[in-house]
Amino acid sequence: MKKIMPIIMSGGAGSRLWPLSRAAHPKQLLPLVTDKTMIQETVIRLSGDRFLPPVFICNAAHAEDIKAQMAALGREIGAIIVEPFGRNTAPCAVAAALHAAHYSEDPSGEKTPPPLALLLPADHHVKKPEAFVKAIEQAVPAAESGHLVTFGIAPNAPETGYGYIEKGERLDAQASHVKAFHEKPDLERAQKYFQAYLDTGNFAWNAGIFLFAPGTLLNEMAQYAPEIFKQASRAFETAETINDVLHLGREAFEVCPSESIDYAVMEPTKKAAIVLADIGWTDIGSFAALHEELKTGEDDNAVKGDVLMHNSRNCLVQTDGPIVAVVGVEGLSIIVKDDKILISAIDASQDVKAIVTQLKSAGRSNDL
Amino acid sequence: MKKIMPIIMSGGAGSRLWPLSRAAHPKQLLPLVTDKTMIQETVIRLSGDRFLPPVFICNAAHAEDIKAQMAALGREIGAIIVEPFGRNTAPCAVAAALHAAHYSEDPSGEKTPPPLALLLPADHHVKKPEAFVKAIEQAVPAAESGHLVTFGIAPNAPETGYGYIEKGERLDAQASHVKAFHEKPDLERAQKYFQAYLDTGNFAWNAGIFLFAPGTLLNEMAQYAPEIFKQASRAFETAETINDVLHLGREAFEVCPSESIDYAVMEPTKKAAIVLADIGWTDIGSFAALHEELKTGEDDNAVKGDVLMHNSRNCLVQTDGPIVAVVGVEGLSIIVKDDKILISAIDASQDVKAIVTQLKSAGRSNDL
Repeated sequence: MKKIMPIIMSGGAGSRLWPLSRAAHPKQLLPLVTDKTMIQETVIRLSGDRFLPPVFICNAAHAEDIKAQMAALGREIGAIIVEPFGRNTAPCAVAAALHAAHYSEDPSGEKTPPPLALLLPADHHVKKPEAFVKAIEQAVPAAESGHLVTFGIAPNAPETGYGYIEKGERLDAQASHVKAFHEKPDLERAQKYFQAYLDTGNFAWNAGIFLFAPGTLLNEMAQYAPEIFKQASRAFETAETINDVLHLGREAFEVCPSESIDYAVMEPTKKAAIVLADIGWTDIGSFAALHEELKTGEDDNAVKGDVLMHNSRNCLVQTDGPIVAVVGVEGLSIIVKDDKILISAIDASQDVKAIVTQLKSAGRSNDL
Repeated sequence: MKKIMPIIMSGGAGSRLWPLSRAAHPKQLLPLVTDKTMIQETVIRLSGDRFLPPVFICNAAHAEDIKAQMAALGREIGAIIVEPFGRNTAPCAVAAALHAAHYSEDPSGEKTPPPLALLLPADHHVKKPEAFVKAIEQAVPAAESGHLVTFGIAPNAPETGYGYIEKGERLDAQASHVKAFHEKPDLERAQKYFQAYLDTGNFAWNAGIFLFAPGTLLNEMAQYAPEIFKQASRAFETAETINDVLHLGREAFEVCPSESIDYAVMEPTKKAAIVLADIGWTDIGSFAALHEELKTGEDDNAVKGDVLMHNSRNCLVQTDGPIVAVVGVEGLSIIVKDDKILISAIDASQDVKAIVTQLKSAGRSNDL
C-alpha cells in the first residue's frame, strides 16, 4: 500500500481571531473547538496505516510548541521544516514535495518509491474525520496517475469567504477534472455558485487541501512557476538542520516569489483533479464561524470561563480569567485573553483584522 | 447672613454602575464625569460665604477616603458622621438636623442660632453650579419661615427613573407649596407628568435635595415619624467620636425603621415647599446617564483608556488598563475595571443591578 505523508502547513496568523489567536500563539496552536489544539486535531484525524508521521512547515517561533503538542499526544513527528519568511503556499508546496521525494521507507536510507504528499492547513475543523480519510482514499488513484488532486467541499451556504472550484469531466470513479477555479466571490456571484451546486453538484468550496505524487507537483511547478520552483528548491538544498528542525535557506527563500498554490500551479496546470468531500469542514476563519461551531441551547450562546449572562443571546463569550458580565445584548463576540479584550458584532467578524492592522500601524507589536 | 450647613449623604452603593462603582469604592467616591470625584464636585459647588464646611454622613468604610479626598481639595471638613447600618434617608435627616441644631458659630461653644441644613446626596451631577447656588438662595426665605424646602428639577424628558413633585400654590416670591409627591411612574404616567410640566410648569423631578431649619425637620419628624425620630435621636445621643469621626449609636440605629425622607415626612407634612431649579441636574444613576453626559463627536462615543474603536457608535467604553477593541457595534456600555468586565446594552442599563444580585446570591462578595 502506497503511504501518504501528511504535510501540515502551520504558517497562518489568524488575525481575524485576535486576541484569541496572536502572533506567538496562532489559531492552529490553540484549542478552539475541542480540548485539543487545531493542529493536534489535524494530526489525530490522519491516523492509521496509510499515513506516515506528519511533517510540519511552520515559523521558527512555533517549532518548539509543535514538538511539545505532538509529545503530549504521544505522536511521532516526521519532520519540522521552518520557513524563514512567509511566502504563501506555493514555495511551501515545493519544499514539501522535495521533502517527500527524498523520503525513504527503508531504514538503511536505500532509495524507495516516494509516498504521496497530502498538503493541508493546520487550522481547519473537520466534523466528520472518517469521511475525510475516505475522501483521501478516493483521491489516491488520481494522485497516483499523475494528477494534482484538490478536495472540493460541498457548500451549505452562498459563502463569500471561500474560493470555489468548478468540476469538469469525470476522471475516474471518484475524481473529476477541474474545469475552473473561482476566486472568493461577492455575494451575488456566491449565490450563483451556490445555486449551481444545488442544481448540478458541479461547484464546491476550495479547502486548500491537496494530494499529489511529489514528482507531479515538482514537474508542474517547474513548468508553470519556474522562479518559485528554482528558489524554493535552492532553499531546500541549502537548508540546515538545527535541533531536529530543518531550516530552509534564508537567502534563496527571501527572493522566492510569494504566491499561492492555486495561482502558481493549480489554475494553469492541465493535471488538476477534484474529489468531492462532504466532511463537515470549516476553516474557523472568524468568530462567526467559531460561534457557529460552539453555540448551544435555546439562546445560542457559547460561553467559556467566568461569565455571567443576563437577557443575552447569540453570543460567543470567552475569558481566560477576569469575570465577564453580559447584560441585554445580542450577536456579540466577547473575547478576553492576556489582558486584551475584543467586543465585536458577530456580523462584523471579518472586520476584526482591522484592529490588528491598527495595532501594527501603531507599532504595538506586543499586542499582536 | 444665616449660614447654611451642607450635609452630604454618602450612603449609596451605585449597583447599576458595577463594576465602576463597587462596595469599597462607590460611585460618589469616583471621578465619573470630571477628573474630580462626585463628592468632591458636590463640595466644590457649595463654596462661598453662605456655606459652612460640609458635613458627611457615610459608611465607616468610606470615612478615611472622604478625609483624603477633602484634603486633596484643601477643604475643611465640618464633621463626618458614620451610620452603622443603612437605614435610608429619614434617620439620616434626623441625625443631620440634630448635628446642625447643636452647631455653634461661637468658637467658645456659646449657643448661637443654628444654621439652615442643606441635605443632599453626594453622587449627583450638576452642570450649572451657579444656578444651583442661586436656587438654594431662593429657598432660604421659605426654610427660615419654617418650611421643608425641596428642589424640583425642570424635566427634559418623560423620565421613569425619578419621582415627580407637583407644585401647589405660591408661598413666596420663589417658593411654592407642594401639592403632591408622585412616585417613580410607569412610562404612560411619566408622559402625562412631562406634558403637564410643559403645559403648566407644575411638575418637576424630585432630586432628593432639601433645605430646612433643623428645628422644623425635627418637629415634623417627631409628629409624623415618631419611632424614627426617637431611635435616630437616641443614636445621635449615644454616638462616639473616634479619630474625629462621629459614630452613631449602633444599638439604637439598628432598631430604627428604614424609611425615606419623602415617605417619613415630606408627604405627610403640611410644611413642604418647592423651589424650581433649572440646574442641569442628573443623578448619573446608570451607564445610560453617564454616556449621555460624556458622549462626544458625530459617533456619540465616550471613550476612556486604551480603547480602539472600529465602525462603532453610541458606546461608552472605559478601561483601567487592558486594551479594549470594539468592532462594528452600537449602543453598548463596556466597562473594564479591577479585572471585571461588563458589556451591557445602553438600553438595558437598569438591568446591570441584576449582575450584582447574581454575584450576591453566589456569595461572591469580593467581586461586589
